[in-house]
Amino acid sequence: MINAALRHRPESEDCFLYDQEHLRLRFHSASGDIASVTVLYGDPYWNLPSADGRYVFQYEQQAMTKLGTGEALDHWACTLTAPFARMQYLFLVTDKAGVSVLVGDRGIRADSQENRLEVSNYFRVPYFHAIDMVQTPDWVKQTVWYQIFPERFANGDQTNDPANTKPWRPADHPGREDFYGGDLQGVLDHLDDLQALGINGLYFCPIFTASSNHKYDTIDYLEIDPAFGDKALFAKLVTEAHARGMKIMLDAVFNHMGYESMQWQDVLANGAKSRFASWFHIHEFPVTPFRDPIHDGGKPQFDTFGFEPHMPKLNTANPEVQDYLLSVAKYWVEEFDIDAWRLDVANEVDHHFWRRFYAAVTAIKPDFYVLGEVWHSSQPWLNGGEFSGVMNYAYTQLTMDHFLTHKQSAQELVERLTDQLMLYRDQVNQVMLNMLDSHDTARLLTQAGDDQDLALQTLAFIFTQTGAPCIYYGTEMGMDGDNDPDDRRPMDWSKLGGKTWQKVAALIKVRRDHAATFGQGSTALTVTDAGLIKVERSGEQHITAYFNTTDREIELTATPVLAQNFQANVLAPKGFVVSVD
Amino acid sequence: MINAALRHRPESEDCFLYDQEHLRLRFHSASGDIASVTVLYGDPYWNLPSADGRYVFQYEQQAMTKLGTGEALDHWACTLTAPFARMQYLFLVTDKAGVSVLVGDRGIRADSQENRLEVSNYFRVPYFHAIDMVQTPDWVKQTVWYQIFPERFANGDQTNDPANTKPWRPADHPGREDFYGGDLQGVLDHLDDLQALGINGLYFCPIFTASSNHKYDTIDYLEIDPAFGDKALFAKLVTEAHARGMKIMLDAVFNHMGYESMQWQDVLANGAKSRFASWFHIHEFPVTPFRDPIHDGGKPQFDTFGFEPHMPKLNTANPEVQDYLLSVAKYWVEEFDIDAWRLDVANEVDHHFWRRFYAAVTAIKPDFYVLGEVWHSSQPWLNGGEFSGVMNYAYTQLTMDHFLTHKQSAQELVERLTDQLMLYRDQVNQVMLNMLDSHDTARLLTQAGDDQDLALQTLAFIFTQTGAPCIYYGTEMGMDGDNDPDDRRPMDWSKLGGKTWQKVAALIKVRRDHAATFGQGSTALTVTDAGLIKVERSGEQHITAYFNTTDREIELTATPVLAQNFQANVLAPKGFVVSVD
Repeated sequence: MINAALRHRPESEDCFLYDQEHLRLRFHSASGDIASVTVLYGDPYWNLPSADGRYVFQYEQQAMTKLGTGEALDHWACTLTAPFARMQYLFLVTDKAGVSVLVGDRGIRADSQENRLEVSNYFRVPYFHAIDMVQTPDWVKQTVWYQIFPERFANGDQTNDPANTKPWRPADHPGREDFYGGDLQGVLDHLDDLQALGINGLYFCPIFTASSNHKYDTIDYLEIDPAFGDKALFAKLVTEAHARGMKIMLDAVFNHMGYESMQWQDVLANGAKSRFASWFHIHEFPVTPFRDPIHDGGKPQFDTFGFEPHMPKLNTANPEVQDYLLSVAKYWVEEFDIDAWRLDVANEVDHHFWRRFYAAVTAIKPDFYVLGEVWHSSQPWLNGGEFSGVMNYAYTQLTMDHFLTHKQSAQELVERLTDQLMLYRDQVNQVMLNMLDSHDTARLLTQAGDDQDLALQTLAFIFTQTGAPCIYYGTEMGMDGDNDPDDRRPMDWSKLGGKTWQKVAALIKVRRDHAATFGQGSTALTVTDAGLIKVERSGEQHITAYFNTTDREIELTATPVLAQNFQANVLAPKGFVVSVD
Repeated sequence: MINAALRHRPESEDCFLYDQEHLRLRFHSASGDIASVTVLYGDPYWNLPSADGRYVFQYEQQAMTKLGTGEALDHWACTLTAPFARMQYLFLVTDKAGVSVLVGDRGIRADSQENRLEVSNYFRVPYFHAIDMVQTPDWVKQTVWYQIFPERFANGDQTNDPANTKPWRPADHPGREDFYGGDLQGVLDHLDDLQALGINGLYFCPIFTASSNHKYDTIDYLEIDPAFGDKALFAKLVTEAHARGMKIMLDAVFNHMGYESMQWQDVLANGAKSRFASWFHIHEFPVTPFRDPIHDGGKPQFDTFGFEPHMPKLNTANPEVQDYLLSVAKYWVEEFDIDAWRLDVANEVDHHFWRRFYAAVTAIKPDFYVLGEVWHSSQPWLNGGEFSGVMNYAYTQLTMDHFLTHKQSAQELVERLTDQLMLYRDQVNQVMLNMLDSHDTARLLTQAGDDQDLALQTLAFIFTQTGAPCIYYGTEMGMDGDNDPDDRRPMDWSKLGGKTWQKVAALIKVRRDHAATFGQGSTALTVTDAGLIKVERSGEQHITAYFNTTDREIELTATPVLAQNFQANVLAPKGFVVSVD
């Protein structure tokens, strides 16, 4: 037995309340090493007299199920209940040679009746506290998101176009500073189109007053950018979206402010005497033009996003800054009834602030969704009371590294995605945002070498996974585009209802028709002997999907609810099949 | 290489700020498997053009040090700094056959220049936030604690003795309901004795109004029990202790209330209509005499501590209960200037409440010490903002399982303690409370079979470890006593200044004379070839201690500052030697 691989972390993604009644446990062992894992468990205070009159702990037993195999580990799981809302538990691990050990809170012990009764080696769930349970909004588990870059979605009102607005040509390669006149009226005009597509969640890139076309350089968090519309229009947009069963997510850029913000301008003008001097991380006054530490060798005078002098970092440890940003966060929820905040560069802002943020917005709307932009593994933000989920780059980039580039094999993909699912509690995995492209990356179709079948196959894979899928505007129109700013071309409305649109709509329909299973069912990922990637989702229904990422035709018997490149029981390359039992 | 054993958890006890400038990393591998671990690291935004013109990440390298070997794993560590307060890092792991892999945020990769530059596989410390850093009070690292069970320490005022107070006979075996008249005046009278012993922290079992002699069944959290004294006396005691450089820690019993508390009596009288009905976890009204679920088969009508009907569990998710308990917590800090709270049954109270608790007390006194009673591993409470440390039962019980009972070998002890040190950040380990006995256990001397040398050797071992040692009243008098209530005998003042007292005082003096090193130095635990347990502490000074837990004499060359059973370079059984370079 490979003792060094046996692992379990109490009160974490390895041990969590799924709901008030059900405790889920996970355990990990070296792949292929262990034959069975059984949990010994019971109430920590439940002791009865044994034959010799001593009071001894009374334990029950439950076998764990092998969830899947990762890069190096097998993952095991089970669900338990506790009559008195308390639990202690110990793992009985048996390898393929029949050798058993006990793995507990104080280490690894030989399996013996004495050691099974050594309660100090049991892991503990001291009490099932609802208030500490990680809860995520159920509606997100049913949502198909659609990301809108407002300046490029649709120009519904030409009276608010910026100076030098360029004509709306979808074939354009936009420059960094170009404006095309997209606005909120454009979104309102097309809500029915989005509803027809099947979308039920709108994720907006920033809409607050800012200089640039992308609006990540906020000037005023409390005003709609005049080129996008005004508050009355935004209120109407929210009402109309809600009437169509669509949720609204806005983008909050709280890591840094824009250079032209009143606060930063005041610091530039008044230096250390500015009443906003402590709003930023300033190391030296007066603040002069930024010294680039890479090229000039010096230390920067103030902290920024990256080394970007136009984006001074906010000091979110300052209670005044916290109160200001929280007033912004609450304002758009209280006054406009938005349903979610997406948090830009969320990982670089402190946890202390995000806990205040989460408490503030969920106090107004208990099922509010807080989505962090974090590109790396995110356990520290996802233990409850901070973010609901994060943008699931690790998951989607690994997917693309197989489907699009074959940088890794199908087997490697399946193992690594299985490991990714072990990073978070189940209810968190269910509200991760799974998108393949965005305003920050080349478009999916371009990454797929302009192969629409390949792009749709990859999209279909993501739609079968745990986590809420998100489409970047224009995907349904078959738009391509390289890294930004080329990925931000004006929307090609001429393709509305066309072939690609129909395929994307059909994919969304399958996801939403089986939302309970896709949203909350368990997930098993494997590679078949023939080389197909097999996805099994088990919940209300049992859904099976196969993806052919090889370059050969593979025979497969299936009665799909949705398929691509599948005929006469042969799944061709770039094909997929989704079946429902 | 045993890939399945390679592990690192970002932002945790494996990756933490030790202070504002220094990031500490730990990495784990199967014991004996790996030859070296090197960290590749740098600022995530620090990219420079490479030969082909692409901007690529510029990394530096630092070798990790092997801290020690646990039951199944080798533990590695290093300390890094970051000029721009941001960091990404990746582990380069080389086994004894010379094979290298990269271990990162998205898995294990072959070592290649391309993979070294795959920044998506780097772990991230997005920003060094002081506000999120786990900070623990420096004074605790210098403290030798002394636990006082007030009813049995000294009777300084006979006018407040309870009815039927028994005569002060240290040889008595107290009954569960007995009173001996100990009080706060008794503590005040003996402060000079405690100072002479070297004590600089007093940890009091509960002193608030309650029915029992142990006072864990609180009636009124805002009053001193009249049999112990009054508020004026307590204020004087705090002032006098502070004047002697001693800190004061009180015991807060917030998991449950006493049966006789006004609140619970109100529930018993008024049932569901009681204004305190929602203060507890009541499943059925009216509340009738408790049904023991073990013997009666039914569900209890209300939640309790264990199955103890006289200790109804408080509903700390109720904001009214929170506010009440926080007013108690703050009252004794604000009005009486106490320095620390010890939290009874802390693991069974919700995290949400403890975060409010920590914020409230540290807002009054930033270096306030919050000590949780948790008997099992405690990572979830020790990530900052909740507890400073916990009562380190895992550590001390493992120690006794070797020194006193030989249930485990010296090698097993050393491995398991090394693993224990890996559970928490260094600054947390430094403020754990290391005690070998308490009012809840048999006395150390009794556990040592009334062998004073063995008891003192075990105590000396704990005094050389990371974490603040704590002595239970009477240890210095050579008192013994079985499980409670026998461990709560009246203090034997006849032994003041005697042989055992002198030995304990000498031990405390060595600890305090080298407080910087014992408090914050690194710790390495090994077993020598001859079978001695060797403790090395490296900080301001270099301290080495040897413990002979075998049954044979072992030769050892040393110039000790403190020793037992050591003569002519021979360390006899039950002996120890502490040397300082």
